[in-house]
Amino acid sequence: MNIESKYRVEPGSEVDLSTWKTDDADGVDRDQIEAQTEANTLAISELQHKLYAQQQRSVLIVLQAMDAAGKDSTIRRVFGRVNPQGVQVTSFKRPTEDERAHDFLWRIHQHTPRRGHIAIFNRSHYEDVLVARVDDLVKKDRWSKRYDIINGFEQGLVNGDTEIVKIYLHLSKDRQKQKLTQRLTDPTKNWKFEAGDISTRSKWDQYMTAYQDAISICNTNHAPWYIVPTDRKWYRVFVISEIVRATLESINPQFPDPKLDPASAMKLLEQIT
Amino acid sequence: MNIESKYRVEPGSEVDLSTWKTDDADGVDRDQIEAQTEANTLAISELQHKLYAQQQRSVLIVLQAMDAAGKDSTIRRVFGRVNPQGVQVTSFKRPTEDERAHDFLWRIHQHTPRRGHIAIFNRSHYEDVLVARVDDLVKKDRWSKRYDIINGFEQGLVNGDTEIVKIYLHLSKDRQKQKLTQRLTDPTKNWKFEAGDISTRSKWDQYMTAYQDAISICNTNHAPWYIVPTDRKWYRVFVISEIVRATLESINPQFPDPKLDPASAMKLLEQIT
Repeated sequence: MNIESKYRVEPGSEVDLSTWKTDDADGVDRDQIEAQTEANTLAISELQHKLYAQQQRSVLIVLQAMDAAGKDSTIRRVFGRVNPQGVQVTSFKRPTEDERAHDFLWRIHQHTPRRGHIAIFNRSHYEDVLVARVDDLVKKDRWSKRYDIINGFEQGLVNGDTEIVKIYLHLSKDRQKQKLTQRLTDPTKNWKFEAGDISTRSKWDQYMTAYQDAISICNTNHAPWYIVPTDRKWYRVFVISEIVRATLESINPQFPDPKLDPASAMKLLEQIT
Repeated sequence: MNIESKYRVEPGSEVDLSTWKTDDADGVDRDQIEAQTEANTLAISELQHKLYAQQQRSVLIVLQAMDAAGKDSTIRRVFGRVNPQGVQVTSFKRPTEDERAHDFLWRIHQHTPRRGHIAIFNRSHYEDVLVARVDDLVKKDRWSKRYDIINGFEQGLVNGDTEIVKIYLHLSKDRQKQKLTQRLTDPTKNWKFEAGDISTRSKWDQYMTAYQDAISICNTNHAPWYIVPTDRKWYRVFVISEIVRATLESINPQFPDPKLDPASAMKLLEQIT
């Protein structure tokens, strides 16, 4: 079974996160995997170049995870070789007053990718059925209607020639503790630690329930979810590079035909002294 | 003399582009230069990481050039190793109707970098004193006032903790012809060729005059111009990597102090089962 389909959630299925692995790298040859990751990042860079040249399709990659799962380092590793001109990363943080004065998708929609581009969402509209639900930021009457609204929104993007990939970085509670502890003790990582990380961790089970619902209800054929084992960085980066590569390969972008007839353009060029 | 200051235009000087080299790599050891470029891109990536962590200062890099000078490939090479999360590239194309309905800096201002970020402008507000002037898109009465407006705008950005670097990729007319010919004959490059490239080339001298004025009048201590020899790619990429590295080193970003006391945060973390 290929890696991309192994971690893809079957549409229509009910997700129980406790049955999904947070570490799936036992017995796997790390050197071989890292060589494959390297090959994938190069392939992604080439495919992105054609996607950008062709300007027909776009790609939206949604990354969601508990704190310290490694979203930032994943972005750095998987997309480190692409031309930054064709890739936009948006980190959605606590909404501003202006953003809260609109519907929850208003600020999201402003950052969806234009044709030829890849957009990466570091957190996304899914926070509006995750933290908004767990922390009671809006009433149930309101957040419970958002799943259908999200499905409709994503359908609209797909209809506008955007390919959507949604990835949940599945981290174990034990591994999170190790990583938060590292953050606290390493001065080059400490700046990432937020007071909110502690209170979020204390609501772990509620978050798992909220993730399960979001992934189950919003896992459509046109915008599938992937659940990626995240405890080991090298394996996580490998799996995500496989998913992104497979997605770009399915688009199969090509350099476009010349806008001008090369021969007549050459003649015009020759006429300029 | 170091590379960064060698190609920096002295504030207050009148620029004559014919006295600036488009190729300055004779007798230079290419292997040694490429190793230095590689070291620079790694250093830039590390410095960007700290800039991003500290969230105090931002950097705006303006790239201007005649067609086919290599702005795109320069961005790819110099910034290929930085985390795309902290770098935004904006390509300013022909203004939309909505953009033309505002003052010329309106669309530009929306893309200036937030604290901790690097923004790269692939073309910029300088087009409003270049193509706008050469092609008579606005009257002289209007474009001639824009230089002072640009200086004021850039002063405002600097006052908001943005470091500005402006780079003119200085390409010879002969080399442009070679590169445009390559574009026409190479199917992986042909998509970059625009009908406008020919008409722009036919106004080469007018563009040189417009560039000279823009660089001379808008070359301030707070937002200097660099004129980079561009005919050879490996040397151009090297010089720009030197400039960017020197700029980031002058900012000297540092990982910030912990937001929380690590010891008390650790205690709170231990209390969560």
